[in-house]
Formats: sequence, C-alpha cells, structure tokens
Amino acid sequence: MGNCIVPYCDGPKNTNVRFTLPAVCFVWQSAMIILFGVFVRYNEESDAHWAEYRVKHNKTDIENDFYFRYPSFQDVHVMIFVGFGFLMTFLKRYGFGAVGFNFLIAAFGLQWALLMQGWFHFIDPVDGFIKIGVENIINADFCVAGCLIAYGALLGKVSPVQLMVLTLFGITLFAVEEFIIISLLHARDAGGSMVIHTFGAYYGLSISWVLYRPNLKDSSKLNGSVYHSDMFAMIGTLFLWMFWPSFNSAISDHGDGQHRAAINTYLSLAATVLTTFAISSLYQKHGKLDMVHIQNSTLAGGVAVGTAAEFMLMPYGSLIVGFCCGLISTLGYIYISPYMERKLKIQDTCGVHNLHAMPGVIGGIVGAITAAAASEPVYGKEGLIKTFDFEKSFANRTPAVQGGYQAAAMCVAVCFGIGGGILVGLILRMPIWGSVADDNCFEDEVYWEVPQDEEPILPVLEYNNHMATNKNAEVMETRFNVEQS
Amino acid sequence: MGNCIVPYCDGPKNTNVRFTLPAVCFVWQSAMIILFGVFVRYNEESDAHWAEYRVKHNKTDIENDFYFRYPSFQDVHVMIFVGFGFLMTFLKRYGFGAVGFNFLIAAFGLQWALLMQGWFHFIDPVDGFIKIGVENIINADFCVAGCLIAYGALLGKVSPVQLMVLTLFGITLFAVEEFIIISLLHARDAGGSMVIHTFGAYYGLSISWVLYRPNLKDSSKLNGSVYHSDMFAMIGTLFLWMFWPSFNSAISDHGDGQHRAAINTYLSLAATVLTTFAISSLYQKHGKLDMVHIQNSTLAGGVAVGTAAEFMLMPYGSLIVGFCCGLISTLGYIYISPYMERKLKIQDTCGVHNLHAMPGVIGGIVGAITAAAASEPVYGKEGLIKTFDFEKSFANRTPAVQGGYQAAAMCVAVCFGIGGGILVGLILRMPIWGSVADDNCFEDEVYWEVPQDEEPILPVLEYNNHMATNKNAEVMETRFNVEQS
Amino acid sequence: MGNCIVPYCDGPKNTNVRFTLPAVCFVWQSAMIILFGVFVRYNEESDAHWAEYRVKHNKTDIENDFYFRYPSFQDVHVMIFVGFGFLMTFLKRYGFGAVGFNFLIAAFGLQWALLMQGWFHFIDPVDGFIKIGVENIINADFCVAGCLIAYGALLGKVSPVQLMVLTLFGITLFAVEEFIIISLLHARDAGGSMVIHTFGAYYGLSISWVLYRPNLKDSSKLNGSVYHSDMFAMIGTLFLWMFWPSFNSAISDHGDGQHRAAINTYLSLAATVLTTFAISSLYQKHGKLDMVHIQNSTLAGGVAVGTAAEFMLMPYGSLIVGFCCGLISTLGYIYISPYMERKLKIQDTCGVHNLHAMPGVIGGIVGAITAAAASEPVYGKEGLIKTFDFEKSFANRTPAVQGGYQAAAMCVAVCFGIGGGILVGLILRMPIWGSVADDNCFEDEVYWEVPQDEEPILPVLEYNNHMATNKNAEVMETRFNVEQS
Repeated sequence: MGNCIVPYCDGPKNTNVRFTLPAVCFVWQSAMIILFGVFVRYNEESDAHWAEYRVKHNKTDIENDFYFRYPSFQDVHVMIFVGFGFLMTFLKRYGFGAVGFNFLIAAFGLQWALLMQGWFHFIDPVDGFIKIGVENIINADFCVAGCLIAYGALLGKVSPVQLMVLTLFGITLFAVEEFIIISLLHARDAGGSMVIHTFGAYYGLSISWVLYRPNLKDSSKLNGSVYHSDMFAMIGTLFLWMFWPSFNSAISDHGDGQHRAAINTYLSLAATVLTTFAISSLYQKHGKLDMVHIQNSTLAGGVAVGTAAEFMLMPYGSLIVGFCCGLISTLGYIYISPYMERKLKIQDTCGVHNLHAMPGVIGGIVGAITAAAASEPVYGKEGLIKTFDFEKSFANRTPAVQGGYQAAAMCVAVCFGIGGGILVGLILRMPIWGSVADDNCFEDEVYWEVPQDEEPILPVLEYNNHMATNKNAEVMETRFNVEQS
Repeated sequence: MGNCIVPYCDGPKNTNVRFTLPAVCFVWQSAMIILFGVFVRYNEESDAHWAEYRVKHNKTDIENDFYFRYPSFQDVHVMIFVGFGFLMTFLKRYGFGAVGFNFLIAAFGLQWALLMQGWFHFIDPVDGFIKIGVENIINADFCVAGCLIAYGALLGKVSPVQLMVLTLFGITLFAVEEFIIISLLHARDAGGSMVIHTFGAYYGLSISWVLYRPNLKDSSKLNGSVYHSDMFAMIGTLFLWMFWPSFNSAISDHGDGQHRAAINTYLSLAATVLTTFAISSLYQKHGKLDMVHIQNSTLAGGVAVGTAAEFMLMPYGSLIVGFCCGLISTLGYIYISPYMERKLKIQDTCGVHNLHAMPGVIGGIVGAITAAAASEPVYGKEGLIKTFDFEKSFANRTPAVQGGYQAAAMCVAVCFGIGGGILVGLILRMPIWGSVADDNCFEDEVYWEVPQDEEPILPVLEYNNHMATNKNAEVMETRFNVEQS
Repeated sequence: MGNCIVPYCDGPKNTNVRFTLPAVCFVWQSAMIILFGVFVRYNEESDAHWAEYRVKHNKTDIENDFYFRYPSFQDVHVMIFVGFGFLMTFLKRYGFGAVGFNFLIAAFGLQWALLMQGWFHFIDPVDGFIKIGVENIINADFCVAGCLIAYGALLGKVSPVQLMVLTLFGITLFAVEEFIIISLLHARDAGGSMVIHTFGAYYGLSISWVLYRPNLKDSSKLNGSVYHSDMFAMIGTLFLWMFWPSFNSAISDHGDGQHRAAINTYLSLAATVLTTFAISSLYQKHGKLDMVHIQNSTLAGGVAVGTAAEFMLMPYGSLIVGFCCGLISTLGYIYISPYMERKLKIQDTCGVHNLHAMPGVIGGIVGAITAAAASEPVYGKEGLIKTFDFEKSFANRTPAVQGGYQAAAMCVAVCFGIGGGILVGLILRMPIWGSVADDNCFEDEVYWEVPQDEEPILPVLEYNNHMATNKNAEVMETRFNVEQS
C-alpha cells in the first residue's frame, strides 16, 4: 500500500518517509538547539535574578507575569494540541494522522516561533539575547495555530515531511506578517483574528489550490466520518470552544483587558452555537442536524471576536458578532465549500474557509470599526491610551486613524496568506516529500502502523474455507463466539 | 424513521424540527441581543475605566477579581460542556444528542442566566444596568448546570425544542429560587448543593414523571451502553470529578474561603470513590464492577459537600460526607432507581436521583448542621463574620439561627424543583415540540444525520446477491479484504 | 470466565473479589477517616483564621498560596486521573480496568499520602496536627503518581485488590524515600525525576519481575491495541504532555522558580516529540510510525527535566535533554523492552522502563550536574540561596557539594524502588488477592460487567438457524438491516 503506480496518478508515488522524516526531524531539532544556545535566555521574570529585580522594581512575587498569564497559557496549550488535534479526527481512518501530525508540527513550530518572534520583538538591546518568559510561549503557541489551521485545509492529503516544510515556512511568514501588523502598523490583534486565523486559513487554502488533486474522489469512501470518529472530533470542538476566552485574553493587557476579552469571547461563542444549530437544522431534509456544522461553525464566533475582544465591544456587540458568524459559517459549509471545490479547485478538507477565513476577515472588520468608534467617554482617558497603546511614537494617533490601520492590517494578513501559500505550495509540489496518491488519501495506513481491527473475521474465514457451505449456521455461530470472547 | 404511526404510541409523532428548532433559536437569540443591548454592561473590573477605578480603590492589577476566579471559571466551564456532555454519552446510539444538545442548551442557558441573575443580584443602583464580570459568568454556568442535570433525567426522550423550553423555564425558576435562598433567607450555598443540584434534579425528575412513557421498553435495546460509549462517558466523569474542587470554590470568599472549599471537595470526592467501588462490587454476582456506578456515584461526594465546602467542615468531616454519599448513591442505582421506574413511574435515564437529588439533600443537611455548629473559637471572630456574611442587616444572626435558615433553603429548593417541574412538564406535553415515539427513544437518527457505520457489508451484499450461494467462502473473503483496505 | 482451572496455571485462580475488594475499601476508608480525625487540620492559609493571620503577616488575599499554586494543582490533577488513566487505555479490552483502577488507587492513595507526607513534613510543632493546604494536595497527587507508574508495568496482570495493596505500600515507601531525599540529603527535586519517576518505575518493574508470568503469551491476542483504543490513549498522552510544565512547576519557588520550571519543561517536551517521531520512523519497515512510541516516548522529556527544571538549565539545555530522551526512550521500546521480557523476565505492559525509569535516571544525573555547575554570576547571590534553599543548617553547602547529594538521592530512589518492589511483589504473590490466570490477562470481563458489543449478529444467527442455506443472501440482507437500524 505504501507504493502505488496507477495510470491516473500524476506519476508514481513513493510514500516511504523512512529517511526524509527522520532526517528533517534530526536536522531541524539540532538547528534549534544551536540557535537556542546562541540566542535564547530567560527574561527578568523567569531568571534567578528575579529576587533582585523584583525588589528593585518594587514588585511582589505574585506580580510576576507568570501568575497573570500562566492559567491562560495552559488553556491555549490544550487548544493547540487537543483542540486542533481532535477536531481533525472526524475522518474515519485518519485519527492517527490528525492527532499525531498535529502533535509533530506543533512541537516543532513552537520552537521555531520562539526564535522568529524573538528576533522581531524580544531582543534585549543590552546583550542581544532573545529573552523569553510566559508571554513568549503563549505567542509561540499562537504562531503554531496559524500552521495548524493550514493543516486543516490539507488534512489527509499531505505527508508529514510536507507538513514540516509547511510549518517551517508558515512560522517564518507568520513572524514577518505579525511584525508588520503589530509593530509597523501598530494594529491591535490580541486574539489573532487577522494575524492567526485569516493568515493561517488563506495560507492553507492557497497551498491546497496549488496542490489540487483532480482524482481525489477516488479516496471519497474514506473522506467522511463514522459514529465514533465524530465523537472524538467533539472533544476537539469542545476544548476549543471552552478555552477560546483564554485564547483571546491570554496576551491582552493585565487587569480589565484580560477580563473584558474573556467575557466578550464567552458571549460571542454562546450566540454562535444557537445560529449554527438553527441553520444546520433549517437546511437539511427533515431538519436533522449535521455534525460537521456543530463541530466547526460553533467556533466561528471565537475567531471573529479575536481582534475586538479587548476593546469595549459591549456584551451585546459580542452577541451580534457571534450571531452573524454562526450563520455565515454554517452557510459556508452548505454552499461555499462545494462551490470552491467544484469551481475554484480548492479542496478544503476541514472547511477552514468557513471556520477561519471568513470569520477571521469579519473579525478584522469588526476590530477596525470598533477601534474607529472608540472614544474617551467610553474608555476613560487612561483606558483609551492603555487599550490601544497610544504611547511613545503613537501618542498622537486617534481612534479613527487606528481604525484605518486595523483595516490595512487585515489586507496584509490576506496577502501574506495567499502569497505565502502559493509560494510554499509550489515548493511542496516537488516529488521528494513522500506525498500520497489521489486514491490513497485520508488513510492512516500510509504513514502509520495501524492495528488490526477487532479480528473476529479472520479465523472464521479460515474455518469457512474448510467447511461445506451447508454448515453455514455453525460457521456463523463460531464467528459469534469469537466476537464475544 | 422520522415519522412513526404505530398503535402503541400515544398518537402519531412528528419529530421533524426543521422549522420549530431554527425558529426557537433565532427568536431567542435575537431577544438575547436586544435585552443585552438594553440591560448589560461591563462592571468596574472588566470596564476600560478600571485603570482609574483601581487607583481610586488602591488596588493593583493582580487584585482584579479576574485573577482570583478565572482559573476556577475555566474548570467549571469544562465541567458544563465536557463533563455533563460526555457523562451522558454512555448510551450506545445517543452520543450526538448527549454532547450536542448539552452544548445547545448550555449556550442558550448561560445568556438567559446572565440576564435573570443580573436582574436579581447585579443591577447597578446608579445607572440601572446589569454589570457583569467573571463572577457573573461563573454564576451563569452554575445556573445552566441545574438545567443540564434535569436533562440527565430526560436523556433520549425529549426533542431539542423541548430542551430549549425546559431551559428557558428552568433558568427562570432557578433565578427566583436562588434569589429567595441567597438573598431573602441569606443562606450560604457556594457549591450549590441545594440551589443547583437539589433543584435541578427534582426539576428533571418531575418533568420525567409528567412525561411518563408507558412503552419505553420498546426502546430498551438502545437504552444501554457499548464498550466505547462507556469509555467516552468516563471522560465526562473524570473531568467532573477532577474539577469539582473548582466548582465548589469558584465563588467562595477570596483567600481561605476558596482554599478550604477546594480542599474539602478534594477529600470528599476521594472517599466517595472507595465506597462506590466497594458497594458496586459487593452487590454484583462474582463481585464484578458496574460502569454505571463508577461513572456516576463517584461524583456524589462533590455534590454533597457543595454547601459546607467553604465552612470549617474539617478534613475528616469531608471524608465522612464522601463516604456516606458513595454508599447511598450506589445503593440508589441498585435499589431505588428500579423502584422509582416501576412504582412511581419516574423514568430517570442517567439516575440523577442518585447522583444529584439525594446527595444534594444530604449536602443541604450537612450545610445546616455545620452552620449551626459554627463558633468563634473555630472560625475566629472575623472569620465567622466573613464566612457567613453576618454583616449589615444580618449582623445579629447567630450560627444556630443560620442553621435554621439553611434548612429552610433546602425546602425551598425541593419545592421549586418539584413544583416547577410539574408545571414545565405539562407545557412540554403539548404535541407541538417534535417529541419522539416510545419505540424510538435513545436514538440519534431521529434528530441527527448519522454517518453510516464502517460500511464493509454493503458491497458484499450486492456482490452476494449476484453470486451462487456455494461461493460463500469467496464472498466472505471479499468482505474481509474490504474491511482491511 | 471468572474461575479458571487449567493445567498451565500455577494453581487454580479465583478472581472473585466480591468480598476482598469491598472489605479492603471499607476498612481502609474507615481508617482514613479516623486518622484524619485525629491528625489532620487546615493550615493557616486554608483556615478561617486567615483573616487574622494575613493582617498579622501583612499579606493580601491574593498572596494566599492558593493563588500561586491552584491552577497548577488542577493541571496535575488532570494528569493523574485523565493523563495516566487514559494513557493506559491503549489495550483493546482493558479500557475499564485502565481508567477505573487508576481512579480507584489514585483516590485511595492521595488520602494515605496526605497522612504519610504530613507526618514527615507538615506536623505543626505547636499542636502536633498535620496542617494541610494546596501544597499538600499537590504533593499527594505527586505521591500517587509513583504508584500509577508502577501500575503501568503491571497493567492487565493484577487484581484491584493487589493494586490497593501495592498502593498502600507504595505510598509508604514513597514518603520515607522522599523524606530521606528531600529532608535528610536536602536534594532538590521539584518535578520528581528521582522521587516520583525513578522510584515508581523501579517499584513497578521489580513487582513485575517477582510476579513473572511464564505463560503470558496465552493472553497475547489481547495484549495489543485497536484503532479506537489508540485514539483514547492519545487523550492521556496529550493531557500528560500539555500539563507537564505545571507538574514540574507546581511546587517550585514562587516567582521565577515556577516560571522557569514551566518554560524548561515546555521546551524539553517539544524537542522530545521530534526525536521520537524520527526514531519511530527510522526503525520501522517503510518508515511507518508506531503509535506505541508516539503515545509514550514523547513524554520522556518531561520526566527527564523534572529535577533540573527549576534550575538555570537554560533553554538550550532543556532542548538537549529532550532531544536525548526522545531518542533513548524510543530505542528502549524497540530494543530494551523485548530484551527485558526475554532475558530478565520482566514483563512491562506499558514500557515504564522506557518512559519513566531511564528518563528518570537521566533526570537525576542532569539535576546533579546542573546543581554542581551552579554559580553566583548565573543565579545571583540571592537567587542561588533561594533556588537551592541554602539556608539554616545548609547555609554553608556549596553547589558542588549539592551536586554530590543530588547524585546520592538518585541512588536512594533506585534502591527504594527495587528493594520495595521485591518486598511488595512477594506479598502480592500470596494467593488471596484474586489475581487472574496467565491466559486471562488484559481482559476487562474478569473484574467488570462488560456491555455486549453492537449486537446485530445475534438475531441474524437465530434467524439463520431456521432458514435454508440457499437463502443466504436474504439472511445477509436482514442482518444488514439490523445493523443499520
């Protein structure tokens, strides 16, 4: 099954990654060790000199940034590894690949992200080292999320080596895009509607477009769920849904910033659930609900409120955003995804266009409008400055101007996603990465040792071969006994 | 399968919710948006004016209530969505309904709870708005828990529209009951033994009594578990069990209150596990353990220590409570549930009577006794006032009197549960809610698009139809190959 | 199935635990209640007198130790119950035993641990009570982890009563070992590489050696996974992996200690994932990944960084530790485990030698080296004292000497594990504990009521018995319908 030479493949496929995968893992991990050795150290709050630093800055231990952000970090961490991982286990025979490759690329990506984001944002001007603390590891997880979203579009159709390459470039592009958006444009995007979701989704969709598989229908019998795989996927859905308030508030401002971001996200997600159920039922024969919608569209509200969650969006504002996104995202699964596959040649396994791209863009727009509408009576004088960080060289920026920059940031995210995706897609088309054939997608056996399923049938068959057909009832009984043992 | 017209149904059933479910979702979500727009704003700790507020009140950022309660909130959130949701997935073919409808009604319920609880407890006297913060979203999750407990009694026997109605009324009743217990009687119930568990359980049981299904045995082949569904249910059990210390401590007093509540709950739950295993083994032939007990009764200690967790119950006191509840709850599953179904006509799918009603009542009694026995030597002068909130108009209340009010609160919870349940049950008997027939309960296919199970059999059958019977071995071999592919 | 009398058993086996299991549970739980009543009280931070204590010590509520450690505690709690529990569900028919017995012994163990550790470390000199708070319940969970690791080596081969005995002695040995290592040798071991992992693993391996089952191959058809059981095991793996930073930082010093321990663990685990995938692919035919490695070896980095996580190991140091451990642990599964089973007669179901023993020893060595290399320029004067607790009677100890004591601690852990394991193994060989026969291992039906699997075949068989064989197609069709219903 590893090798397939069939007429309709675009050439013979070698899916054996026995040398490429270990080679990539060893080389990249070794490179990480060297680069970390040269560049990375603890920051003031995680270094043993904290005892002196804290006295000098008149802080108590509990004011270490660790205690502000660590609980949120752990929630984000769960979203990355269990949330994204299990969300993709809905396919009947791709659970190992979903959870396993998600695990692999996230573990690599977060190391590379610490370096890339460190070079852009966390270089200590005195000694030139990247100084890391809890905020960095949250940011690294965020950065990885972009690549995992891209994986969602490609699920079941790429090799682990391709995923490692996708992640290497994805993190790099992410860090540059983030630098432009956050540092140059001075846009705010605490929950990453633009920086993470919009970028990640378009990055994945563009790669999927470049890697278009004309004969993917040959794998169609595996491109679906079974009862238990849908249950596993709900684990992913729920952990994403529950911890999204932590995602959007993890790196917001201390105090009211984190507090408000969590509340807005909580509300937005709640509203999304109701419209998702409504549309899912409304558009099906007999009003039956579709698990694909429940697993995915219920999360759209968290994506869309990412940028504005720390602003004074107001509780009802959050509900409105969630309401619209559940609606749009579910309609996307019903109408837009089939259209994209048929007409635009974009095969989007998990529907990231509906879950991340559209809600991400909406989130960017909501953020721009909310920022432009900010005013001193609503935020307070000090609150306005703190929320939008109107300090130093940005001290004279007004909310209206900020709104414009937010909109510009949106465009940067889309461009980086599409441009980067096309570029990386072309690299991934090289025949050296161990990709599968069109008729072998969505199948764990290609890259994993898969255990035999409950094996009752084999002994029966052997038995059967030696028995006369008219002893059928007896044979069946044997089989039954085997299954019961 | 959607429509069944059979003699033993109490009339033909139309389970098509294609218009009612979307209509209810859209109307109620729109109402939420309007009501939130009119009534709900951020409180001082989540509003951007925090920067000024905190200076005025001489607080640091870390003293924002968010940092006291947010980690506990996230644990409670997991209990509501993964804990309750997966606990109910034990049925072999009702996993989608268990997790999915739990998701739907919790997401709706928490919005309505924010409003209802807000009107009773969180109106700002100055501007008349409901001001929300992290404590409110914890309380909203608590409020939802009451309705999810009620769902446990009705699992597999009601339509999603019925559940939405149940939730609307359940939250409303809960808020009134809570107002009477907490504000009027000034009873303490941080973990909600009375307010949440007793009320929720009797509410659900009463509805189940009104909706009694005489022919439910026609669905009996689906009213049980399979191996994997029991494993999914254990995910729910364990997340409830592990995070229960957070549930009982989430809204306790800052400092020792939260600390003590967590420890007491931790101990009580540990003791419950041992007596549950003991009774489960003792009452089965061959001493084999029953998963139903392990999944449910192990949690009874958390319920029963809800009221008294923040009091000076003492570590050994917590162990005693847990010891008794594991015992009583497991015996309930063995003796009381069958009796209730046979004699009292109460069909209790998940056994909420054993997991929530009895332990809830015990919790109320333990709370009353512990409160009545409180004394200054044990609590300290200031500690006694703080723990029981003997301030303002309650400054003169003594522990003994408090014990009396706690007992009164217990009765209020039971009455609201039974009275409210009967009322709402009658509403739910109206034939417009898309309920299922007696022979079609515990079946996801009624309301969900269910994927075909591992499909190897269909091709074989087609093949089989065209082949002579004496080629049976060959046919079986084909089938085997299909399954291995 | 409960009783087996077959020639190759070492005597007839009575697996009926109907009296022993309840007896043990009741007696031990009752003993716990009495001992807690006599010995255990709340400490200053969880007692209602906190209101006075905190004023006297000039602390605010947020400086209650609860807020420093409770989020980490909850993560550790998840690791113990869901992490360890689900990690062991990989066997096709031992999911109930894996999760259920894990639950039972952890719930008992933590109570006994609170007492044992309390007597050694937390006796109040004034009134003689053990005073407990959040740190105690974390330590109790840690202590339990040692026994759960031992269970990993014995999974599927012991009765619940044997496990209770194993836990009783395991906790006792642990507490003595911990007292020697932490208090007498004054070694540091915040994440428990030595105290927890090394001890636990050798304890379990030694017991397994004493309980060697020569005919275990008779159960070999159940000693493996199926597709869904591997997915359940990944839930355990991921929750262990994600929350390990909390495990290693839970009881570190406030401030930089916890902060640094979390970062080091995060990095180490990330590196482990890459080398695990690399070796797993490199050593398999066709480069296919093996789920056994992914489920287990990816965690080795967390074990190995346990001792040194709170030291100034440096980010690159953590990566190096992780790199090596992923490599060694995976090779252990490939080469050492089969060798141990064949030559040393140690049957290690979960491979705890590869996941806990070897990485634990490496962790001890890394800790000793890092401690010996500590210096004032790197730690700061105050930081050095605080990190290694060079105070009171240890004020004159130098880092080099500390390194020696760390190494000595390593040896103590190994000796206690092996010695204690052999002793307890001999006790467990007594024929009164309800152990299973060699041909009946890895099978839930021995101790659990197991639900019938999806039952479509039975009715068909009955039908089949009454039908002529040449109506086979019709029969199959009937069966198909049954399965679809």
